[in-house]
Amino acid sequence: MTSRPLDDNKVIQIGLVVENIDEAVQAWSLLLGVTPPSIIITETVDVAHTQYHDSPTPAQARLAFFDLGQVALELIQPVGSPSTWNDQLTAHGPSLHHLAFEIKGMEKHIRELAKHGLRLIQRGEYTGGRYAYVDGQKQFGTVIELLEND
Amino acid sequence: MTSRPLDDNKVIQIGLVVENIDEAVQAWSLLLGVTPPSIIITETVDVAHTQYHDSPTPAQARLAFFDLGQVALELIQPVGSPSTWNDQLTAHGPSLHHLAFEIKGMEKHIRELAKHGLRLIQRGEYTGGRYAYVDGQKQFGTVIELLEND
Repeated sequence: MTSRPLDDNKVIQIGLVVENIDEAVQAWSLLLGVTPPSIIITETVDVAHTQYHDSPTPAQARLAFFDLGQVALELIQPVGSPSTWNDQLTAHGPSLHHLAFEIKGMEKHIRELAKHGLRLIQRGEYTGGRYAYVDGQKQFGTVIELLEND
Repeated sequence: MTSRPLDDNKVIQIGLVVENIDEAVQAWSLLLGVTPPSIIITETVDVAHTQYHDSPTPAQARLAFFDLGQVALELIQPVGSPSTWNDQLTAHGPSLHHLAFEIKGMEKHIRELAKHGLRLIQRGEYTGGRYAYVDGQKQFGTVIELLEND
């Protein structure tokens, strides 16, 4: 690996999969003492170009974000399948899906991490950027997300 | 709940349970491009007064911490049982155990959270402070840790 495969080691997201995001948003809002954030849905595959194990997937997710300082807590309710979000929820119930780090140069980072056994499992786009999930469950106890904003 | 049950919503720890902390420290050190941190072990029950479901437990844990900015990544290898660390590893393998928040007034916070169904599952002490884990798996997808430093 390069000396800093993640560019910057400041984790910027903690992504949890949940069964029911409406209930989870309520519960977290009470715990954090904040106004419930909006729930959004990821773009459809024609816009997001979502790929799961190198094939297009119609899976989407409903998302909500809470401000925990440097880190955003991201709640994720899978919608459809196949997706790594759905895999995690099916296997483990409500639980951590990923820790996210912001990088510059997505293809370079994906190649670099693949050399060390961190396999790309899903990728996609959103307005202003793109993401990639690499499989770190065994070595790291979590999926690692690379986020690149333009 | 009070308006801010966690006092401050800045998450300060992401705690992951691992099978083998020596291997996990090596893997994370490579991924983050940093020198491997020391591995420590929690105090024995006579010093830490570790309680699991209101009874003393001899369980300990080997720990290592990585600096991710505002947040520390805590790797946890359970040593002995019963403990909430061991429960998580047994049920789900390497995975998120807790998100930690720093609070002032441990007993008040434990009582307040208990009123809302967040049950105390384990507590203990360390040099300069104390911790409590409350069960948030179902509602929150994670155990919530309260940390109080003197």
